[in-house]
Amino acid sequence: MKKSPTAEIISVGNELLIGHTIDTNSFWIAKRLTRFGWTLQRITVLRDSLEAIQDGVRGALRRNPNLLITLGGLGPTHDDMTLKGVGLALGKRLALNPEAFAMVKARYSALEASTGLTRFRRKMATLPEGAIPLPNPVGTAPGVAITIDKTRLVSLPGVPSEMKAIFTGSVIPILIASKGQAPLEVSIGLVGIIESALAPALDRTRKAFPRLYFKSHPRGREGGVRTLIQLHVYSVDRESRVQLDKAIAYLLRELSKSAYSGPKGQEKPARKMLES
Amino acid sequence: MKKSPTAEIISVGNELLIGHTIDTNSFWIAKRLTRFGWTLQRITVLRDSLEAIQDGVRGALRRNPNLLITLGGLGPTHDDMTLKGVGLALGKRLALNPEAFAMVKARYSALEASTGLTRFRRKMATLPEGAIPLPNPVGTAPGVAITIDKTRLVSLPGVPSEMKAIFTGSVIPILIASKGQAPLEVSIGLVGIIESALAPALDRTRKAFPRLYFKSHPRGREGGVRTLIQLHVYSVDRESRVQLDKAIAYLLRELSKSAYSGPKGQEKPARKMLES
Repeated sequence: MKKSPTAEIISVGNELLIGHTIDTNSFWIAKRLTRFGWTLQRITVLRDSLEAIQDGVRGALRRNPNLLITLGGLGPTHDDMTLKGVGLALGKRLALNPEAFAMVKARYSALEASTGLTRFRRKMATLPEGAIPLPNPVGTAPGVAITIDKTRLVSLPGVPSEMKAIFTGSVIPILIASKGQAPLEVSIGLVGIIESALAPALDRTRKAFPRLYFKSHPRGREGGVRTLIQLHVYSVDRESRVQLDKAIAYLLRELSKSAYSGPKGQEKPARKMLES
Repeated sequence: MKKSPTAEIISVGNELLIGHTIDTNSFWIAKRLTRFGWTLQRITVLRDSLEAIQDGVRGALRRNPNLLITLGGLGPTHDDMTLKGVGLALGKRLALNPEAFAMVKARYSALEASTGLTRFRRKMATLPEGAIPLPNPVGTAPGVAITIDKTRLVSLPGVPSEMKAIFTGSVIPILIASKGQAPLEVSIGLVGIIESALAPALDRTRKAFPRLYFKSHPRGREGGVRTLIQLHVYSVDRESRVQLDKAIAYLLRELSKSAYSGPKGQEKPARKMLES
């Protein structure tokens, strides 16, 4: 089985930690990593603090992901300090990057006439040494990429439209170049079985099919009405496909055996829906 | 200025890292921590992996937060392994906790008649030594609390209704007992000024009022129409209140000075709205 390439996300911004903004960026990226067969190992949300960013980046690099994405803190103001934190973590000086500066200049010349490039705009083109800028087609601050040993570190802005544009233009090609196996996924929705009642059947199936990944998600309350079981296979060869089909049949058989010992007042066997 | 008590969240579940589920739990908790004057320092999202949980909990404890909340992985199935991971991180054995077992038993006797307590249900009452169970009024798996040095570690289920019920019953009292100063917050929405154009004014205001915390959030695209500035004060004494009023007046004055050098095609000075 081919090993799936790994990624981590570091999402920076006090607004994410005071209950002001929900981190939809990481969720959006997680979907895409999964789709290209990458494994997102960890998301870390940090405050706008140099110390926190430095510590977070160092910690992530110690785990050697193939890709480390930082989100947020690339803008023009004082509290945009992600690149400074990355520089500290890598022991790299920050310097004005001519290519990035040209990108920022081109962007502003399209936006306004008179105002010069203030130091706040130069800031957006000041990158850790050895980094390259990634074009931002819908905003001003370029993305930033730098390679450390086996890890590609990519810094993206926190504004969702800008993050998505740079991700699509510059990160998706990285995902494709080291494409893993997108998981086969089958979801089985069960109505009228509480999670703990199906645990024995799930456990037996898991033992019978050790190569498959099973996860049950209670929906609503324990004692409530719906449990979602997901089966994942991280390999798409013919044999995995066969195993997946067998596992579903096995699981449904096991569940029908235990359905009558279910919750009180449950007269009929649990209804099973094969969603996909 | 009184130091704000600190918290971290560790949210466990593969579904959060494959783009299946968005971590609304952490967001919900972040709001409440902020409201009670606590500072959420970091959110870490981890896979259902013993090694990841052990590493994540150890890392968080090294940073000595006053409160460490883990979310998810308390249920009956094989991939619910948070307490085992916490036990490994703390070097504590897991054992059946009689008080927790009584809670689980009481819950199931309300739900069903015939089925005994399987090992899956015993699992939900198996806690690290020294831990105490927290009542779960709407589900089966109790929450778990344990104190390590100056850190209170609380493990809550991932099902939102259960998490919220235990948080409200057992965690809010902890927040109140060490209540910090809830920040005064003022948001100023600016229309027609791009973030980098207001950076100089914001920077001067920041220097004039070093005790205040400022943050600007671009809304929409850079070059677009709206920027939100937030001012926070982490102290609610009379002097802070006065400082906040002065800072708003100062900032608006600085902004009106620079408004005419704004984006091309901007004839009128930027409209300013004092939202609160």
